[in-house]
Amino acid sequence: MRTMLVTGSHGFLGSHFIHELLVKYPAYQVVAIDREADKVPELLRPLFANKRYVFHQVDIRNSDAVAQVFEHYEINDVIHFAAKTHVGESMRNPGIFAETNVLGTFHVLDCARKQWMDGPFEPKARYADSRFLHISTDQVYGPRDHGFADETMKYDPISPYAASKASSDLMVSGFHESYGMDTVILQAPNVYGPHQQDDKLIPIILQKALTGSVIPVYSGGEDVHDWLYIADFWRAADTMFHLGEAGETYLAGGEAPLKTIDIVERICAALDRHFPGNDSYTKHIRFVEPAGGAKAPHRFAVSAEKLKQQLDFVPETEFGQGIQDTIEWTLSKKRLWEVV
Amino acid sequence: MRTMLVTGSHGFLGSHFIHELLVKYPAYQVVAIDREADKVPELLRPLFANKRYVFHQVDIRNSDAVAQVFEHYEINDVIHFAAKTHVGESMRNPGIFAETNVLGTFHVLDCARKQWMDGPFEPKARYADSRFLHISTDQVYGPRDHGFADETMKYDPISPYAASKASSDLMVSGFHESYGMDTVILQAPNVYGPHQQDDKLIPIILQKALTGSVIPVYSGGEDVHDWLYIADFWRAADTMFHLGEAGETYLAGGEAPLKTIDIVERICAALDRHFPGNDSYTKHIRFVEPAGGAKAPHRFAVSAEKLKQQLDFVPETEFGQGIQDTIEWTLSKKRLWEVV
Repeated sequence: MRTMLVTGSHGFLGSHFIHELLVKYPAYQVVAIDREADKVPELLRPLFANKRYVFHQVDIRNSDAVAQVFEHYEINDVIHFAAKTHVGESMRNPGIFAETNVLGTFHVLDCARKQWMDGPFEPKARYADSRFLHISTDQVYGPRDHGFADETMKYDPISPYAASKASSDLMVSGFHESYGMDTVILQAPNVYGPHQQDDKLIPIILQKALTGSVIPVYSGGEDVHDWLYIADFWRAADTMFHLGEAGETYLAGGEAPLKTIDIVERICAALDRHFPGNDSYTKHIRFVEPAGGAKAPHRFAVSAEKLKQQLDFVPETEFGQGIQDTIEWTLSKKRLWEVV
Repeated sequence: MRTMLVTGSHGFLGSHFIHELLVKYPAYQVVAIDREADKVPELLRPLFANKRYVFHQVDIRNSDAVAQVFEHYEINDVIHFAAKTHVGESMRNPGIFAETNVLGTFHVLDCARKQWMDGPFEPKARYADSRFLHISTDQVYGPRDHGFADETMKYDPISPYAASKASSDLMVSGFHESYGMDTVILQAPNVYGPHQQDDKLIPIILQKALTGSVIPVYSGGEDVHDWLYIADFWRAADTMFHLGEAGETYLAGGEAPLKTIDIVERICAALDRHFPGNDSYTKHIRFVEPAGGAKAPHRFAVSAEKLKQQLDFVPETEFGQGIQDTIEWTLSKKRLWEVV
């Protein structure tokens, strides 16, 4: 049995990762931690009594609590998802982002170092193949007017969220350089799909549309982000964890840079086809100004070349198919509510 | 009167900066903080009863203590020196580096934001020209076999110290991008000169030589660092603070990349001339292996071009002169001890 610590287990990415990992690898067991013990994600509920899964409520800002996890379990690997992720919230309250994303990451990283290493570049025999997979974001590179960000580029964060993630990436790669720890960094663009939390863009659009509410679109819908379907995110994380080179950073590009307005219109069109109302859903779209004055729209676009060239990975789910699957999952959930 | 908060006031750079600032600018006053209240640097002792100088013992890891400073004073500008700086110590105890250099920087930065800004890109009228000067290091770029690091390059820290400083730089530039705060980052190479603390390379060499002890040289003396004289550091900081462009980062290159063994031999030669003993001081040089096995020597070298081109700044003190002045100061201090 190989014991993996998964931090941020109750998030969209973490819960999906654990679910898929335990299905695919019978010899892996998971120690899951999250700062919230309630609101157990649907994908983790069947694991409640599973011998290969344990959960502890741990806030990674608390270094003692993190240390206790490493005292109780012989952790072979760490998959570090735990992070505050809401860009807008980071503008209002940057402190919790610095504490969680930077210092919290440090706490997990340093406990792993103490468990795995006798000294710099001297791993303990039992932990010679231990790996720390850090989940990060393409936003560390900042926006660009044209072209695609790649892993060679300088970090240039434009939000406290992105700055905190960029800092945490440097902590992780710094531990590889300083101590010879086996670390890999996965930088994902926006991920979407079934089971995503309700306060993210695509779930908001779907909820607003399906409840007949106004669909708010900021910055004229001209913001561009790259999108990766959750099943492809899992495959990318699985690939990097098992095949990635120690010390490397990989962008998991979705090859789908899309304007927000295009996403909204594609969702509305799909809903018009599959769940038609009296009017087109597009009638509910409203362009609104973000609080704090007009902000130039930002374009985030990333290259998927390094992952393709070096680890032979390409995303499989094209955006149209991914959004279709997401809508179907959302509708099945909505129908359930309506029946209940 | 303009009120400047200087953090890390009791350090080599901070104390020198305050001394020169108060001499040059009669309309500036300084609120100085440091985590240590004893060991007042010689340069600050004459300021004890000066109306333009106040000191408070504050550890920047304590966000409440930092907030109290901003409650008590209307801080116009921040010059942020406070940091843990010893690379070897960072390997043994990285936690205090993450807490001080990253989270501590965040605390100071966020208090300044709250004091200076009504909201993102909305500075309060009274603080419309407030500036945050962050003192950092060329080590954020990591070593290179040839050529010179410049400000366009990707951060690649190889020690917990450098990783923590790189993270703090991203926090600072992130606050410029996120909130429109006026920030400038000064990245200095190794700084040397009179009044430097005893545990740094040149003071150690001088102390060992002058006490007839073995002069230990690590990695065959093949490590290369760029060196900047303290008077030039002050001029660079003064220039950047008053003339630097908001949001920019400037390397204050000393234009003196030198091998450690060259530094040791130049110091020994200068001592042989000015303070001769029975034997040459070079007889005391011993090559030693660092703890934790052999480590490839590292070469840190930085470009001084951006500062020269954009702010018309060049260092004035050539290394030979700077080391000469440092030796004379050390000897005068040593003679004082001998007399006492």
